[in-house]
Amino acid sequence: MFKVQVIIKRRPSILDPQGKAVEKGAFNMGLTNIKDTRIGKFVEFAVEAVNKEEAVKEIEEYCHKLLSNPIMEDYEYTMEEVL
Amino acid sequence: MFKVQVIIKRRPSILDPQGKAVEKGAFNMGLTNIKDTRIGKFVEFAVEAVNKEEAVKEIEEYCHKLLSNPIMEDYEYTMEEVL
Repeated sequence: MFKVQVIIKRRPSILDPQGKAVEKGAFNMGLTNIKDTRIGKFVEFAVEAVNKEEAVKEIEEYCHKLLSNPIMEDYEYTMEEVL
Repeated sequence: MFKVQVIIKRRPSILDPQGKAVEKGAFNMGLTNIKDTRIGKFVEFAVEAVNKEEAVKEIEEYCHKLLSNPIMEDYEYTMEEVL
């Protein structure tokens, strides 16, 4: 089994209105030194696979088709085999 | 200035219906070996601060009051000074 951690971020050229909104809330609460907030996703899961190649195939498909929006997001992941 | 990366996760004891739903979608698409999907947040921002202590104070307040829900989520962050 492999444990996988994925970070999904909007591409730098894509605006992040959620980040802007949260940052404005922070400013209004007196946290005036926070800049450039961008909010992405962090996903953890496990894959049952016979070898690393099979696991990578499944991970890539999961990330590409379900976890991220390939039009405007990029993902990166780390994986670790657990016995 | 400090660049900060925060990972926010639901506590292990808290159900994650979003993760379950995405995983069910994966199963229906033939990705049948994915388990234990949990979806959290990944937040990046910058803090202008005169020293590390001031930055940490602002980061902690931002994470605790705005980015995470302290009732059911935990956060961890890394920070790096940039000149």
